[in-house]
Order: sequence, then structure tokens, then C-alpha cells
Amino acid sequence: MAEQLSGSDAPVVVVDVLGGDNGHDVVLTGIDLALAADPRVEVLACGPAQIVDVFASTRPRVQPLHATQNIEMNEHPASAVRAKKDSTIVVGCKAVKEGRAQGFFSAGSTGACLAGATLFIGRIRGISRPALCHVIPSPAGNVVMSDIGANADCKPEWLVQFAQMATVYAEKIVGKEHPSVALLNIGSEDTKGSQFAQECHQVLKDNLPNFAGNAEGGDLVCAKYDVVVTDGFTGNVALKTLEGTSKELLKAVKGVMMSNLATKLGALAMKRGLNGLKTRMSADTYGGAPLLGVNGVCLIGHGNSNPEAIKSGILATARMIEANLVEEIVKVVK
Amino acid sequence: MAEQLSGSDAPVVVVDVLGGDNGHDVVLTGIDLALAADPRVEVLACGPAQIVDVFASTRPRVQPLHATQNIEMNEHPASAVRAKKDSTIVVGCKAVKEGRAQGFFSAGSTGACLAGATLFIGRIRGISRPALCHVIPSPAGNVVMSDIGANADCKPEWLVQFAQMATVYAEKIVGKEHPSVALLNIGSEDTKGSQFAQECHQVLKDNLPNFAGNAEGGDLVCAKYDVVVTDGFTGNVALKTLEGTSKELLKAVKGVMMSNLATKLGALAMKRGLNGLKTRMSADTYGGAPLLGVNGVCLIGHGNSNPEAIKSGILATARMIEANLVEEIVKVVK
Repeated sequence: MAEQLSGSDAPVVVVDVLGGDNGHDVVLTGIDLALAADPRVEVLACGPAQIVDVFASTRPRVQPLHATQNIEMNEHPASAVRAKKDSTIVVGCKAVKEGRAQGFFSAGSTGACLAGATLFIGRIRGISRPALCHVIPSPAGNVVMSDIGANADCKPEWLVQFAQMATVYAEKIVGKEHPSVALLNIGSEDTKGSQFAQECHQVLKDNLPNFAGNAEGGDLVCAKYDVVVTDGFTGNVALKTLEGTSKELLKAVKGVMMSNLATKLGALAMKRGLNGLKTRMSADTYGGAPLLGVNGVCLIGHGNSNPEAIKSGILATARMIEANLVEEIVKVVK
Repeated sequence: MAEQLSGSDAPVVVVDVLGGDNGHDVVLTGIDLALAADPRVEVLACGPAQIVDVFASTRPRVQPLHATQNIEMNEHPASAVRAKKDSTIVVGCKAVKEGRAQGFFSAGSTGACLAGATLFIGRIRGISRPALCHVIPSPAGNVVMSDIGANADCKPEWLVQFAQMATVYAEKIVGKEHPSVALLNIGSEDTKGSQFAQECHQVLKDNLPNFAGNAEGGDLVCAKYDVVVTDGFTGNVALKTLEGTSKELLKAVKGVMMSNLATKLGALAMKRGLNGLKTRMSADTYGGAPLLGVNGVCLIGHGNSNPEAIKSGILATARMIEANLVEEIVKVVK
């Protein structure tokens, strides 16, 4: 596993140095922050030799992993990972497959990471489709939603596995005890929803002891359920709606606060409380979206990650490795 | 049309006196507020004789319309409107069909109103499916979304009509000039989304001169497009997510403001600005969700409407009548 580095059982994370919109310097700074924050984590810095060799040379817990190509955000994911065999995403995923690392973190193209991880790390045996998961930021508490976009078209039975995997994540990483699972639907009654949603409801009810029924869009931010499961199309629309609404609303509240001297003074008094709220609403607490169902830990960060977000992503990947997330999923779905 | 009442060309609205969670007194108070606010509007008060006769007797612009039954929120909509022929929803919709009124307003069961209006007012000739529309409250501006729940399962070509009808509503009622239409999807590129979304994209592109491409969940609250079209399942999830997020977030901001004396004083300074924001975010500005595609005006209010919301609903119904909304839709879709 970590024989490349210290030879210990430390978690080894491949970091995609070219991933993200803000350039490799931001990623390298994020790696430094992660190394400083967690004395155990070790990093395979995956990128062009001229960048990663110098960087690794002065850092005992970093090894270089050479990859010359970058997959851009606008490339077609499946074609790009097939065509660019020497891209950071492909080389990084292969390193996980080969056991040189146990986890992969990238702030690059979500689609390319999905395609790369599925093709080159591979699925856990018995998993129909890996699913992308997300911890929904909310003032009321955390909700784990899956799928948030890996599978735009789903079969109802896939959602059973999405729910099982998200339940493991909710338990081992988010710290939920006996997580409840709900299906994202458009009414609380069993018979509500599209044909697809009704079929999902039935198959979830038949297969999951922790299935609690239907959730509605408004429940996502109320933390009424621990896990909310849905197809990747609906999940992606709901997540982006939620994030967009909270961003616009906080911006509008800020606008009110900055409108005159009296409101500015008022805002000063609220600074601490509002910062707390902002932190609770921040998407970065869990470092990104874990792709569950592949045979290795894989976490995808926001494209516009700053060094702090890169740090969070690396540390979150290490936490998933240390929690044996893959083995825990294997236990549940077999 | 209005020969029951003044014999003028005043807009006549049937109001479901038993509709809503708060009892008929709230609805009657709402009617009084509407009559006071708009000197033209006339009302057919639809409910049990012992309630509506006394009410109408002292109000020259109100006529009673007798209906003995009520459809509860938890009843199966299609079965209920078939079984309860003397319910306020069925009797009210029939009065529109018969030309005794031009519009129907209810804060009762959305499903029963949809079923009642479709069965007893009937569709506009050429319309495949009526769709429920909603003006999304946002700090940035208004977006008309359709369908928000009338059709959980859709065919791609239905969305063309949803878009055409919502465009008429956006133009005539919301006051948009040359409204743009976008498809709710999970990526901006043409090839993104589920199989269904891709087919919708193609058929919208082929048929709508004002089609502007894909919108994402985050665009709903940014007013980037004037009309966003989607199937009723996705639309309902997105709308409830948006409403739930804004409610929880404003509650959390309020919590911060009430945390100590200094923050309370600060909140006082912001009161005016925050009230303005709250009004802009309020769902009541357009009185409820219009059902477009039936052969008469039909507006469905929130179940928990207070008298102000009932008033808004009645006035909005009257505005749609005066704008000849049904005729305008007929022109566009034929």
C-alpha cells in the first residue's frame, strides 16, 4: 500500500495536481495545508514531472506521480479518459487500482473523474453503478443525498444500492447512528410520484430495513431524514437548486446589511452568528462529493476549490480510507 | 357570462369557500378583502347554502353557488371528483364550463382541483395536458416555471405546449417582454441530461423560436431565463427544494438576529430591508399556481392561505380573466 512512502499503514492519497479551475499552485498549497493538518496522511502528487518532482523533493510525505496530460472541464468525459491515457485522472486512478494509494482526490472535471474511476479503479463486485454522494449543507443538520449526478438515467433497483452505500457513508463518515433513508418524491404518500418513483418506492420498501418513506424537496434542508436517495438527474437538479437558493438569499441578506450605516453596525453585531451559519451552509465541510461503489476511495472537489477546499478534500479522502469505507460497503451490498 | 350578477362585463370568479386548511371564515374574509380592493370583480361563493346564502345576501357583488360536499386534502383526487358530484370543486368548475363565471379559485386540494378542472372545465382544444405553473419567488427577479406537478410523467412534446402556455402567462400576467424559455437540465451543453431531457431539448429547439437552451437548478433563483420548463416531477422537487431552502435559511438568519441585545438592535435597523426581501420572496404575489391549458381560468392557492392570500388569489384570477389568458393561449397553440 504505502510502501512508496513511509512504509507505514498511513493513508495514501493521490492528488490530481492539475484538477481545478485555479491552477496547480492552488492544489500544491492545499497539499501543504493537508500535510500540516494531518501528520499521518501521505500524498502521491500526480502531474507533470517539472511541477511535482520539485514539489516532492522537499517533502518527505509526498511522492511524485508523473502524468503529462490534463482533461479540461469541457471535454467529453468518457472519450477524454479513453484518449488521454497519460492524464492525471487516468494515471491517478490507476495508482489506486495498483494499490500504490488507497484514495484519489481531484477538483477536476466531475464527469471525467466518474468515468476514470469507474474504468480504471473499477466497480466493487456486485455494484451495478457507482453513485455520487453529497452531504447537503443546511442550518438544521446534515443530509446525505445520492445520486447527485453520476447516473442521469437509473433503474429502480440501483437506488437500493445507492441507499445502502450512502447509509455506510452517513454512518462511518458523517457520524449518523442508524441512518434513516427516504426517497426523493413529490408527495409523502406511497402512491405519489412518477411511475419510476413509485417503482423505486416499492423496491426500497422491500429491500431496506431503514427505509422511512418519501421525502419532498423541502425536507432536504430540514434534516428530517439522514439519507435521501434519488436518480442522478433529480438529485443534481435538487442540489443545484438548493445551493443556488442559499447563495442568492445570503447575498440578498448581505445587501440589506450593507445598505446604510445603521444596518452596517447591526451586521457587525451579527458577524459571529452569521459566520457560524455560513460555515454550516458551506459545502466544503466534507471536502467534496464521494463516488461510492468503486473499488477505492474517490472524492471529487469543486472546480473552483481554493487551497482550504483542497486541504479539506485530501483530509476527507484520508478519513474515508481510515474508516475502511470500501470494505464497509462490500460488507453491506454483498 | 356575468348575467347572474351585475350584467356587466366584470370578471366573475367562482371561489371555493371550503377550500383551504383554515376554514370557510378565512375564505369569506378573503372575498371581502378582494371585493374592497377591486371594485369590478364579482364572486360566485361556492359552498353549503347555510354559509354562502347569508354571506351573499348583504353583498351585491356576490352570488351564492350551492355545493354540499367538500374534498379533503388526503382524498384520492381523481376518485374524489368522480364520487363527489356536489363538492365545491366539481360544482365550481362546472359553473365555469357553463359560462356562469370565467375563472375558478380554490385553496383546496391541488390534485382535486387539477382533476376537477380537467374533467369539468375541460381542456383547450389541441392541448395534450394542462400544466401547473408557478412564479418563482427570488431576490433577483421572477421566473415562471411549468410544470410544477400536474404531470409527473411527461412526453417530450408536451413540454413544447407547457413552454408556450407559460410564455403567454409570463407575457400577459408577469409582464415579461419577449420571454426566453429554458429547459431544466443538469448541464448547460445540449447533450447533457437524461434520455428524456435530451429528447425534450431537441423538440424544444425544433419548435420554439424563444428557446434559449438548458437551465440548471441554480439558475431558477437567478432569473437568468424568464420561463423554465420541465416535467411535473422535476419541477415539483425543484420548487419545494427552493421554497424549503429559503424558508429554513431566513429562519436561521432570524435566529442569529434574535441571539442577543446587540443583534436585536441591529435587526431593528434592517427591518425595512428584510421585509422588502421577504415580500420579494413571498409566494403570494401571484396568488397561487395557475393551471394552464384548461378552457377557463383556474388558479390554485396554498392550502394554508390566510385572508390576504385568498384576496391575492381572487384578484389574480380576475386579472387572468381580464387579460383573456385562455384566448391568448388558444391563439398560440393552435
